[in-house]
This record gives sequence, C-alpha cells and structure tokens, in this order.
Amino acid sequence: MPDDPLAHRHGRDSVKATVDLLADRWTFLILREAFFGVRRFGEMQRNLGVARTVLSSRLKMLVAEGLFDRRPYRSDPVWFEYRLTDKGLDFYPVALALMQWGDRYLAGPSGAPTILRHRACGHHAEPIWVCGHCHLALHARDIQPEPGPGASRDETR
Amino acid sequence: MPDDPLAHRHGRDSVKATVDLLADRWTFLILREAFFGVRRFGEMQRNLGVARTVLSSRLKMLVAEGLFDRRPYRSDPVWFEYRLTDKGLDFYPVALALMQWGDRYLAGPSGAPTILRHRACGHHAEPIWVCGHCHLALHARDIQPEPGPGASRDETR
Repeated sequence: MPDDPLAHRHGRDSVKATVDLLADRWTFLILREAFFGVRRFGEMQRNLGVARTVLSSRLKMLVAEGLFDRRPYRSDPVWFEYRLTDKGLDFYPVALALMQWGDRYLAGPSGAPTILRHRACGHHAEPIWVCGHCHLALHARDIQPEPGPGASRDETR
Repeated sequence: MPDDPLAHRHGRDSVKATVDLLADRWTFLILREAFFGVRRFGEMQRNLGVARTVLSSRLKMLVAEGLFDRRPYRSDPVWFEYRLTDKGLDFYPVALALMQWGDRYLAGPSGAPTILRHRACGHHAEPIWVCGHCHLALHARDIQPEPGPGASRDETR
C-alpha cells in the first residue's frame, strides 16, 4: 500500500501490547481460574497442573502489573490469596471471547463444557458484542480501523 | 471444595482448548493483521517483523485448522493469499477484547493508537458485551459458570 492509513499501528498497537504482556498459555489460564472464583495458590496449582515455580512467577507478574491484589487471608502462618483488581476484572471479555470461540469450534459434538448463567436475568448469557453507540451487533466486516489519538507515525517501527 | 460443581471444567474447557490451539504471540498477531485486511505473506512478514519460517509455520497451522483459506491470486508464478474463513472471522471478538483492554491499560496518556469506526452507524464502535438474552451489559461478577452439555465428569483429569 503506497500510503497505508494504518502505518502507525505497526509501531503502537493495543493488541500487540496486550499479547506481549500476557501471551503465555499459563497467564490466560490463571486468569480463567480467577474468573471462576479461585483465589488460592494451591487450588490454582491443582486445577491447572502447573509447576509451582511457573505459577509463582506468573502470579508475581500479574500482581506487579496490577491485575491481582495479593492479600493475607490467614495469619500464623500468613497465607495469601490473589484477588482480581478492576484491571484484572476488565480482562474478563477476553476470556469470554476465547471461551465462546472454543465452544463453537473446539468443544466437540456434545457441546459446551461450561455455560454461563447471567445472574441479572437468570438465562444463559451467550454474550454478544454490540456497538457502544448504536447497540447493533458488531461484525468484523462492519468495522473500519482508523488512526486514534495515540497513533504516532514518528514512532512507527 | 468438597463437591466442586465445576470439577468438570478442569478436564474440558473451551478457554483452555482455545489457548492451547492459539496461544502463541505470533498467531494472535497474524490474525490481527488479517482483521486489518492484510492477506499476503510478504506484507504480514514486513508488518510483523517475524521470521519467514515462523510466519510460514503459523499460517500452515491456521490453514490446517480452518481459520484461513489459502487461495491463488496470481498465476505464473502462482502467488497465494490468505483469507479468513468464517471460523477465522469468528475469532474477531478475541482481537477486539484484547485491543480494548490494551487501549484502556497499556496505551499511554495519548490514548488508543487505533480506533474502530462502525460502518453501520458511522460512529466509533467502542464495543460492549451484552447478554444475548436480556441485552444488558455483562460484567464478570454477574456471570455464574455452570456445567454445560459437554461437561463430563468421567473425563476429568
């Protein structure tokens, strides 16, 4: 493309930034555990079958990046639990989107292993994405990426 | 938990299945390129700065898994392009969710590097997740995971 209107995105891009931070199988799975209500190291470790050193380093990163708070829940000896911060909770749509795609394409003939009940209405949530402005369902083909306020050609590459 | 109602999920889980398939930094970024309209090997390679061998193996996997179609677009010599299938297009919400989180937490003071215009209404899309049943916005705290039709305790661990 001679004059690529999206040239800026190669240097600064929020998909890339997020993936660089979190693109590790275990990081996604630790966050999934947290969304399912698991807060304790031992329980995460058992559920995931992950090495303790790996879990420990990923949790440390997630605390340092502000997705989890590490809080004492028992004294003598002090035990800690990991609670999602707002920043961590805001990652929930990523887990939802991954789960929805997996349910559709990888779950096999018997169907979704887990369904999500929406407490507000009592029905299965089956999440859909809508436009924050017109509230119509969003489809990839209807969306045009454009340079945003943080786009800077100077920082390309 | 003595009787964990979600014991089944440790064996079969769509987040885990999806992450196992795609949890590779490059795979996410190749899909992002495709959502931005890039179809050709050379352009992907330039945009991502990825080694040709790595790009080639990831594209082969994505074709084998049915997310891309590889189609000739020029003959003599035959050149190919990679076009998203429906299965590939359906991965778009994952990219949206990653981008939205990154815009919020990693983009820096100047704001989002890329914005998404919704062609249907002409405004910025700012996607929101809603419940497919009641159409209220979904929040992590309002969602209760339950065993689905594909849950099978027999296959746990």
